[in-house]
Amino acid sequence: SDNMSEALNREAFRQAVVNTLERRLFYIPSFKIYRGVAGLYDYGPPGCAVKSNVLAYWRQHFVLEENMLEVDCPCVTPEVVLKASGHVDKFTDLMVKDEKTGNCFRADHLLKDFCKDKLEREPNLDPKKQAELRHVLAVLDDLSAEELGAKLKEYAITAPDTKNPLSDPYPFNLMFQTSIGPSGTLPGYMRPETAQGIFVNFKDLYYYNGSKLPFAAAQIGQAFRNEISPRQGLLRVREFTLAEIEHFVDPEDKSHPKFTEVANLEFLMFPREDQVSGESARKIPIGQAVAQGIVNNETLGYFIGRVYLFLTNLGIDRDRLRFRQHLANEMAHYAADCWDAEIECSFGWIECVGIADRSAYDLRAHTDKSGVALVAHEKLPEPIEVEKLVIAPVKKELGLAFKGNQRMIVEALESMDEKEALELKATLESKGEAEFKVCTLDKVVTIKSNMVTISKETKKEHQKVFTPSVIEPSFGIGRIIYCLYEHSFYTRPSRDGDEQLNVFRFPPLVAPIKCTVFPLVQNQQYEDVAKQIARSLTAAGISHKIDITGTSIGKRYARTDELGVPFAITVDSTTSVTVRERDSKQQIRVNVDEVATVIKEVTEGLSTWGDVLWKYPTHTA
Amino acid sequence: SDNMSEALNREAFRQAVVNTLERRLFYIPSFKIYRGVAGLYDYGPPGCAVKSNVLAYWRQHFVLEENMLEVDCPCVTPEVVLKASGHVDKFTDLMVKDEKTGNCFRADHLLKDFCKDKLEREPNLDPKKQAELRHVLAVLDDLSAEELGAKLKEYAITAPDTKNPLSDPYPFNLMFQTSIGPSGTLPGYMRPETAQGIFVNFKDLYYYNGSKLPFAAAQIGQAFRNEISPRQGLLRVREFTLAEIEHFVDPEDKSHPKFTEVANLEFLMFPREDQVSGESARKIPIGQAVAQGIVNNETLGYFIGRVYLFLTNLGIDRDRLRFRQHLANEMAHYAADCWDAEIECSFGWIECVGIADRSAYDLRAHTDKSGVALVAHEKLPEPIEVEKLVIAPVKKELGLAFKGNQRMIVEALESMDEKEALELKATLESKGEAEFKVCTLDKVVTIKSNMVTISKETKKEHQKVFTPSVIEPSFGIGRIIYCLYEHSFYTRPSRDGDEQLNVFRFPPLVAPIKCTVFPLVQNQQYEDVAKQIARSLTAAGISHKIDITGTSIGKRYARTDELGVPFAITVDSTTSVTVRERDSKQQIRVNVDEVATVIKEVTEGLSTWGDVLWKYPTHTA
Repeated sequence: SDNMSEALNREAFRQAVVNTLERRLFYIPSFKIYRGVAGLYDYGPPGCAVKSNVLAYWRQHFVLEENMLEVDCPCVTPEVVLKASGHVDKFTDLMVKDEKTGNCFRADHLLKDFCKDKLEREPNLDPKKQAELRHVLAVLDDLSAEELGAKLKEYAITAPDTKNPLSDPYPFNLMFQTSIGPSGTLPGYMRPETAQGIFVNFKDLYYYNGSKLPFAAAQIGQAFRNEISPRQGLLRVREFTLAEIEHFVDPEDKSHPKFTEVANLEFLMFPREDQVSGESARKIPIGQAVAQGIVNNETLGYFIGRVYLFLTNLGIDRDRLRFRQHLANEMAHYAADCWDAEIECSFGWIECVGIADRSAYDLRAHTDKSGVALVAHEKLPEPIEVEKLVIAPVKKELGLAFKGNQRMIVEALESMDEKEALELKATLESKGEAEFKVCTLDKVVTIKSNMVTISKETKKEHQKVFTPSVIEPSFGIGRIIYCLYEHSFYTRPSRDGDEQLNVFRFPPLVAPIKCTVFPLVQNQQYEDVAKQIARSLTAAGISHKIDITGTSIGKRYARTDELGVPFAITVDSTTSVTVRERDSKQQIRVNVDEVATVIKEVTEGLSTWGDVLWKYPTHTA
Repeated sequence: SDNMSEALNREAFRQAVVNTLERRLFYIPSFKIYRGVAGLYDYGPPGCAVKSNVLAYWRQHFVLEENMLEVDCPCVTPEVVLKASGHVDKFTDLMVKDEKTGNCFRADHLLKDFCKDKLEREPNLDPKKQAELRHVLAVLDDLSAEELGAKLKEYAITAPDTKNPLSDPYPFNLMFQTSIGPSGTLPGYMRPETAQGIFVNFKDLYYYNGSKLPFAAAQIGQAFRNEISPRQGLLRVREFTLAEIEHFVDPEDKSHPKFTEVANLEFLMFPREDQVSGESARKIPIGQAVAQGIVNNETLGYFIGRVYLFLTNLGIDRDRLRFRQHLANEMAHYAADCWDAEIECSFGWIECVGIADRSAYDLRAHTDKSGVALVAHEKLPEPIEVEKLVIAPVKKELGLAFKGNQRMIVEALESMDEKEALELKATLESKGEAEFKVCTLDKVVTIKSNMVTISKETKKEHQKVFTPSVIEPSFGIGRIIYCLYEHSFYTRPSRDGDEQLNVFRFPPLVAPIKCTVFPLVQNQQYEDVAKQIARSLTAAGISHKIDITGTSIGKRYARTDELGVPFAITVDSTTSVTVRERDSKQQIRVNVDEVATVIKEVTEGLSTWGDVLWKYPTHTA
């Protein structure tokens, strides 16, 4: 069928890309001499350079351009933080075990494989059955442990390798667990995302920003997920680099001062309604999407536009990039809106950036757990009268009853929300005492009616106190880079037509090496000129490589095309040299003492290749 | 005493630095709202910018300048790798436990505290006793568990807080342990250093380098040590950034082509002999140190010189930087030579960079454990005759006896060194069979004499095959940054003399923000000019900050001096502005449309402040 041959083509294309990537050390399976570990990869020299270029551009495009507050927090995280964020309880995948060998599998993977396989291999299957399997595939992500288990039983699915029976599905927490300090009493995890490090610092960062909203904090760093059985090669790994932005904003004003700068950008969007009604993604100017309420607010829209610019400037193909809105059932209950930047590659449409309006959820969760109020204050234009609940702990009584714990209990009483406080008040009035949970002590204490007074008072307020909303663009750097490799890869015949040569068409911004220097033949004069040019490139901060092997110039070009090096300087005289552009293979002649400047201009985007082609004589080999 | 008052001064100075660092968010104790975790710190916005500047300069100074192969490997590491490197067995500190509360302490810390305390508090102590305590302090690092235990008993040392009795000292492994994958059968650790990721990739990297020596690989990344009880604040932490270089070189030729470029550098060196004979560090040109054999070889000397340049260019005070050679008892048995770059700060002389010639140890260890030969090949000028041991496994017999394990056993037999092979040969000849340990299978098998032939043959060799030596400069980035803070910090009186103001004298290279822009008074015209300047600074890639608060200009200068911002632009007209240098407080007048260029020149080191002071009119406030 067409589907099958397309799948085979995709598979062959991917193999060609991955072979090139591994042969040229863009990636190396980690610990390869020890047979490796699934889901762990090294970046070899060119991959490491690409990554460092992508991160430098991310910093330039987001952090510097928007004056974000960048922070750098540890990977090792104590349990309490991830308990508050919900990861300890909910960051799980459903797993089944081979009942004889103990091998583990993701329950949804097995069901998915079964359905896909059946649909592909049995084209004459009863249409009703086909529809059923398609339905299972569509709702796969929503199935509960029980529902998944029932389906596995119904289809008699067994362990893929051994055909042994499987256990019922049960949740497996995806965090790498460890223990902090020598006593074994302080459990910790390797962080599953970098965002929590920013949330817990909200108070300090807000103060650092002059106690003004909006502002954004950003973090680049490693994150970890102990996947049950990593598949999809470089896209699903157990350790990866995230770049995350947490933009804090007044929930009542999510406008963005620079929104007009992106409003006219037009790119593929895939709103929720279009997905439900079976339509395709379509081009919508982001200004219109916000005006029509398709995108919830300007700030979210601004970041969608900025992400579009970031990805396409890196070299992601705009026709294989779309912004897909989360369906209602995909989105967390607290989220106001959520869009994924999805990039199409040989594995299908892959989520590479998530852009979510998480409302006040995260700051509230840490306020509740820590007892430290993560809130913003804003002076009101004029004071207003409000009826307010006043909680006044009686410190003396609490001190007598609870000694050293007094402060924690006072803080816990003061941080009750209105509902809790009114319930406590009612219980104290009816029973004279009440059980009270103190999270920071992790225990329940008995509060008597003489220990706290709770009353409603009318007060004049001069400022509004509120929990900011968080708008979070979160970038999976490794996934973006992998998709970039696929979008940049092509092959073309060698000069004599007897083989296909690989090329990565990286823009200079991304290219691991900007320029190579080749003496045309092995002689001392040319080598000296090459070294002189190399020194001037170093001084100009242009990464480059000299190749003084006697290999044919064609082979040397082919080797560097495969690394995506955009420019090659060939030293074929002592006064002027040829500069070759990778994709057009056009060549120009430039004086030796000018060449570093020319390369700097075209790699830093001050001139295009077209500009210099116009300015310098062309060269025909 | 003088010692005591000096100690108090140091303590007060440190408090002033650390208070400023924490108040301005260079550092934040991690997870502060949850009371933090000892030994974990965040870099806040200015700290994060300093770190990223230091790392960018490291990449420029080492990786780009020397064409090193940079790699990026995961933190999660399977046990087998760290078993081979020796970390699973030997990366330990001796620990004692409070026998009642279970609290843990480093045994050497308790003994050290006891001795120091006694010497300080009892100046009239018997001189013999004083000498004994000083001797204990001198040999502290060399004491075995038994010796440490005996001393703790002899001095009746108890738990510091509770005075409870202590357990005997026992080794505690400092790696954070975890488990990879869901089955719980693959133990892993968070890497204690980044070097191992490079060693296991030696074969690929050597091939990538055209199978030529010498070459260097480099890695920047997180490393982890689960310290028993972290002290010394920011200097001893549980997670930190390392930048490591592994320079692979022919053990018979450790010369370095660029050594002459550093040979005349002269700085404080502290050779082993001088330490033993009680002398002080002295200035020696590095060329002389290598020529006289004080430093083992040119390559080691070259890196020592490059490290000196790196640290002093960052702003480390050359008079409080020394290179100390390891004493014989400090050095691993396999190391050929080892020097630490030590920086003096309020905690004393702190090891910040280790520069070690580790000989062939690491590559051999991984060759032995993995069965993959991590060796280099070099074509000989003419072939030589050598007597060579030939190990010929009989695959058929091994296959019959060991089935699927055959390949592993063949590899293990082939990778025996000469001594092992001759022993096996002898045993096979005398007993007809022998026990043989196969590391990759983790089991012992019985080899019969028909399964392998081992013989000595005379062969013509065309190439030399050898394990390269490794020269490893390893940088503790966080420690370097902390020492830089201490070396950069000073105070000076405010204009009206009523308070002391803090200043960090960071060079522009390191400064978290290069420039601030202040409209002198709050008006629309000046603000517009400030924004125009800000845009041109962004375009020039200069990190900057606008401060449009109405605060007095003096206060705004003080705030940015405390962040170490080297230049401030004050907008006091719409055509020209004043530029102020932080340390001299000198001001010049520059046209609005020129100012970004001037700032770019002085921050990127193309001009000095002296140059522009000469070129532009000075301004007196």
